[in-house]
Amino acid sequence: MHDTTPQTADGKVLWHFSMSLDGFVAGPGHAMDWMPAATNRSGLIAEYVETTGAVLGGRDGWEAFPDAGAVYGGAWSGPLFVLTHHPDDAGPAEGVTFLDCDIAEAVEIARRAAGGKNVEVLSASLGRQLLERGLLDEIDLHVLPVLLGDGIRLYDSPGGAPVPLEMLNGDPLEEVNLRYRPTGATGASGETA
Amino acid sequence: MHDTTPQTADGKVLWHFSMSLDGFVAGPGHAMDWMPAATNRSGLIAEYVETTGAVLGGRDGWEAFPDAGAVYGGAWSGPLFVLTHHPDDAGPAEGVTFLDCDIAEAVEIARRAAGGKNVEVLSASLGRQLLERGLLDEIDLHVLPVLLGDGIRLYDSPGGAPVPLEMLNGDPLEEVNLRYRPTGATGASGETA
Repeated sequence: MHDTTPQTADGKVLWHFSMSLDGFVAGPGHAMDWMPAATNRSGLIAEYVETTGAVLGGRDGWEAFPDAGAVYGGAWSGPLFVLTHHPDDAGPAEGVTFLDCDIAEAVEIARRAAGGKNVEVLSASLGRQLLERGLLDEIDLHVLPVLLGDGIRLYDSPGGAPVPLEMLNGDPLEEVNLRYRPTGATGASGETA
Repeated sequence: MHDTTPQTADGKVLWHFSMSLDGFVAGPGHAMDWMPAATNRSGLIAEYVETTGAVLGGRDGWEAFPDAGAVYGGAWSGPLFVLTHHPDDAGPAEGVTFLDCDIAEAVEIARRAAGGKNVEVLSASLGRQLLERGLLDEIDLHVLPVLLGDGIRLYDSPGGAPVPLEMLNGDPLEEVNLRYRPTGATGASGETA
């Protein structure tokens, strides 16, 4: 189905998302129609297309976007794995391998398929589980200029302990200062700022 | 009680918070013990101390931190307003004025007291209401290198519409790219990354 090039030390397991300023990676029901306004810095997509060797997603997100050709707007193609406890009712999907196994095993399968490049985890739920099991190497986020207020949260862990991080593209322990201005009508009242 | 210098056009109404990467401004029960690791850039505190003319808070946050002398670690002093529907049971608190009025009126009172400097809104709930009513000028966030997963969210608006923003300290509509690495044990399993 795809190459299983031996894993090298170079590939990382990345949690990769666009995220609203208030921590949502999708709207209610995995809606993605809230993110049209933002732009990427030049070369960003090309960089991730080049460094990504395999993609690992979850069933819910997959059901919302059942198109293996849509990763990075079709600019990337490669092995795409979807972890599900019920692969039997998932139906055939070109370019997609449904896995029903422990998440650590799923990551290992994706790593081997990635041929030394990175495994991208495009699922909030899988990312949280990998983080909790120490299997996540990096969190890459693109923070969009929008507040969402509802939907799928990047990290939802009621009762859990704080997870300390080190920044990789800045001072490791320094805050990132972000200043925004509301630009128009909000959903609640229609008034403008 | 405090000066009521006439409002000038210079003062802004700011929503100002330190925030976890995943969108929380406090832990469960308004806990703040999750944020020790991060550092500010040089001069940041001094800048906000200088530009802040008045502070407007909510009752819940106030109850968790009932110390008017603690704003910016004691570096700032000035008029502090706490909006509550029950000022009668709030008890006396030095340096604090309890308000029981519409939030628009509370902001106007704080603006007059700020004497042309900024009004800082240190409450998720009040900030959301001001945003919905078009009364918030700016959102200033200091994103800390930590995932919290539980607590008080910056912006909680179930069923609400997305609120578009413009960045003020960067390209207005561009994403902000943030990369992190988990640094140690998480709450769930104790394994390390």
